[in-house]
Amino acid sequence: MTTLGEIAVVAGAYLRGCDAATVIVGVAPLHRAEPGYLSFLTHRRYRACLETTRATAVILSPEDAASCSTPAVVAANPHVAYARAAALFAPVAESRRGVHCTAWVSPDSHIAADTWIGPHCVVEAGAVIEAGVVIGPGCVIGEYAIIGANSRLVAQVTICHRVRLGQRVLIHPGAVIGSDGFGLALDSKGRWLKVPQLGSVLIGDEVEIGANTTIDRGALEDTVIEDGVKLDNQIQIAHNVHIGAHSALAGCVGIAGSARIGRHCMLGGGVGIAGHLEIVDHVQITGMSLVTQSITESGVYSSGLAVEPNRIWNKISARLRRLDEIFRRLAALEKKSNRDGTL
Amino acid sequence: MTTLGEIAVVAGAYLRGCDAATVIVGVAPLHRAEPGYLSFLTHRRYRACLETTRATAVILSPEDAASCSTPAVVAANPHVAYARAAALFAPVAESRRGVHCTAWVSPDSHIAADTWIGPHCVVEAGAVIEAGVVIGPGCVIGEYAIIGANSRLVAQVTICHRVRLGQRVLIHPGAVIGSDGFGLALDSKGRWLKVPQLGSVLIGDEVEIGANTTIDRGALEDTVIEDGVKLDNQIQIAHNVHIGAHSALAGCVGIAGSARIGRHCMLGGGVGIAGHLEIVDHVQITGMSLVTQSITESGVYSSGLAVEPNRIWNKISARLRRLDEIFRRLAALEKKSNRDGTL
Amino acid sequence: MTTLGEIAVVAGAYLRGCDAATVIVGVAPLHRAEPGYLSFLTHRRYRACLETTRATAVILSPEDAASCSTPAVVAANPHVAYARAAALFAPVAESRRGVHCTAWVSPDSHIAADTWIGPHCVVEAGAVIEAGVVIGPGCVIGEYAIIGANSRLVAQVTICHRVRLGQRVLIHPGAVIGSDGFGLALDSKGRWLKVPQLGSVLIGDEVEIGANTTIDRGALEDTVIEDGVKLDNQIQIAHNVHIGAHSALAGCVGIAGSARIGRHCMLGGGVGIAGHLEIVDHVQITGMSLVTQSITESGVYSSGLAVEPNRIWNKISARLRRLDEIFRRLAALEKKSNRDGTL
Repeated sequence: MTTLGEIAVVAGAYLRGCDAATVIVGVAPLHRAEPGYLSFLTHRRYRACLETTRATAVILSPEDAASCSTPAVVAANPHVAYARAAALFAPVAESRRGVHCTAWVSPDSHIAADTWIGPHCVVEAGAVIEAGVVIGPGCVIGEYAIIGANSRLVAQVTICHRVRLGQRVLIHPGAVIGSDGFGLALDSKGRWLKVPQLGSVLIGDEVEIGANTTIDRGALEDTVIEDGVKLDNQIQIAHNVHIGAHSALAGCVGIAGSARIGRHCMLGGGVGIAGHLEIVDHVQITGMSLVTQSITESGVYSSGLAVEPNRIWNKISARLRRLDEIFRRLAALEKKSNRDGTL
Repeated sequence: MTTLGEIAVVAGAYLRGCDAATVIVGVAPLHRAEPGYLSFLTHRRYRACLETTRATAVILSPEDAASCSTPAVVAANPHVAYARAAALFAPVAESRRGVHCTAWVSPDSHIAADTWIGPHCVVEAGAVIEAGVVIGPGCVIGEYAIIGANSRLVAQVTICHRVRLGQRVLIHPGAVIGSDGFGLALDSKGRWLKVPQLGSVLIGDEVEIGANTTIDRGALEDTVIEDGVKLDNQIQIAHNVHIGAHSALAGCVGIAGSARIGRHCMLGGGVGIAGHLEIVDHVQITGMSLVTQSITESGVYSSGLAVEPNRIWNKISARLRRLDEIFRRLAALEKKSNRDGTL
Repeated sequence: MTTLGEIAVVAGAYLRGCDAATVIVGVAPLHRAEPGYLSFLTHRRYRACLETTRATAVILSPEDAASCSTPAVVAANPHVAYARAAALFAPVAESRRGVHCTAWVSPDSHIAADTWIGPHCVVEAGAVIEAGVVIGPGCVIGEYAIIGANSRLVAQVTICHRVRLGQRVLIHPGAVIGSDGFGLALDSKGRWLKVPQLGSVLIGDEVEIGANTTIDRGALEDTVIEDGVKLDNQIQIAHNVHIGAHSALAGCVGIAGSARIGRHCMLGGGVGIAGHLEIVDHVQITGMSLVTQSITESGVYSSGLAVEPNRIWNKISARLRRLDEIFRRLAALEKKSNRDGTL
């Protein structure tokens, strides 16, 4: 529970047509908001809902505010303002401090005073848990790993040996950081020999890592995730990958070994990036595309194909396999046309 | 161990050419069955095996029964009959009751009497575990989560705070239900600000969720999985997705935020569904297809391309990139042909 | 810390231009190696670095050794030699023996003497842990599962009931072996009935399984992973799949039920294999390809499409949907040309 005044301060917004002392009990979408609730307009699509919403006030842009009469919390970037306002209503992560009686913490680890180590956690020898860290139930922190200040591991997270996390890192359940990279050498009999994975993983500040995402340790040097990178669920990052600051990767992305992704990149869901290539800053790849070569210019790239009714797709797919034949038949016609002087 | 008579009752079938008192010790495929075993014919492909099987009896359809002499358990839907019969031979999930001595259960949780909370489980404050629930080793049940009656969490499952499961839900190891959605607002400096995820996840009755599948909580409203939905392994369901009753999704499917899937849909392995779209009931999408727009008619849809030898594929792929050129060259020839009156 | 002499012995190599007594403190890439370090040249791409490296010695092939003056550890297969040499510098997995005080081990399990069962592990009744096995923190071993000698489960691994692992198997965090297959029968009302999954999983010797990879148990017979198979992270293997010895699968591969993959196959990242098909030995599938039919000849196969700038791709994609029209228009022109006798 808070007031519109406090919301305006937190959101960097100003009030129009409403009173700073008005109490707000929660946030809700325009079509669902009851009196007492704050709502928001971040997409034109929902503009018509402004007329009918029962929300006490709505976060919106100066342009939208100009053309409507709703009591408004006006912000240059309503999405950012909403994110800040909504944080006032989010449950506090974990206010407990100390080590749960069922956790096992090595006497040779280093745990700052104001941290929380949850039930059934394991903290191995040499690990460092910095100030303000909250580790939820069932997490494993390997030997000599470092969890930077004010980071939070929600539950069942595995941090392998010597992995280093920056500050304010947030990791969701089931994520695995620092598993061995997939390094194999083929012997003369066609058998795979394991190449020891001697590097580690270095995670910057304010990185968020989704549920069941995996990040492998480097073969010799470190896998690096720079500051502010946001990774969704079920992402696979291979050894020695480097992801530049403030890039965001949607669910199910897979990045092969030693690929280098620039800063401020956005990868759509299910995108695949081949190994040993480089993508410059500010590149956006749409969903389910495949990148097999370096990208040297910023921009939007795609290779995903959208569905057709199956009967039609089967025909397209069959024709596709005869594409070379089309080229040859077309060229033959062109040649004939040019030779005869007529067509 | 049971009898053909009991099997017929459970499977809703009748016996032909065999005795209800005959003892059956197990189920096996036609080519492997020994005397004493029950087998089944659910696909025409294996019809020839009827001649040679050593099975004591075979579950099959009236049509197949008519044209063969095998002792038979005859059922209108042999696949369903087999599923029911085989259940008689499945190991009983867990007959233990109580709380394992290594589990940690908050004194502020509500645990029904006839439940089992396995080794190293964690049940947080406010959580409700209803009658008949079996929670296997290493599971985490977050604050105020509700696990509906007779549900089973196999092992290492994470149920985040306030998630609600219906009755008879079955969840396989490593699944994560209720992790934060991937909600981000971009500030003016190109940095991502987390949008608090204040909704939850609502799972219906008789839902099955595969190993390492992840389902994110809603941003404001709930992510909803309706009754009877079946999710295979490694599926990613983003925030505010809605999946209609009795839909089945194969492994590695990814569904982006706020997509709405109808009832009785079937998605093949690796399918990707973009966000903010709607798919009507009874839609089937074949494997590794991508859906980027709403589907308004039931039917089968595809966009996956099957492999060719690499050398041929590289040629097809190169030609594909020149498809626009083909169109232009073809149009030029057509124009010339029409203009000259000859071809 | 070791010597070049020991490295040569372990790697099956000989020294050229350097002294067997020389001390080596670690391994490093050519451009990063300091004096005291061993480096390696396994790819032509880095050949120029030989001139400037500060490494004390470099593992390389006889051909590369012939044309350069660097002190060399010469090996027929430098990649294999490097893998063996680097193993001298890898941290020893776990030298502890016994059962951690926080683990829960059923009195009805069978644990060999020289094993390690880590913190918060669960070993159920009937499970067999053979000699030399190391089980890291938070693992669950189900009833009657068998963990073969000298295998290692890194952390948070789930081995379900009756799964059998061979010797020297290595499993990374979050992997789930033996979860129920996705077996469903559709009843007359369009509801899914679970088909009990009564088979198990059989894993051969020297198999490596990546983080968060899932392998389902068979419906009636076993899912089989033969000796020496290497599975990367986030792979999904459905019920009754059979993978031949020494095949290697990159991250995010998905294999549908009852598919049979040959020996010495290589599947690139994100590849999808449909069910009930067979792939012969020595087949290689490039990244993000889809296999929908059996492959009967060894070789390299593909169906992945690489990105183009979005604007161009949209045009290609639109043209692709009109491919059938092109064929018809082209055929019409050809017909006209043949009829008129001119073109």
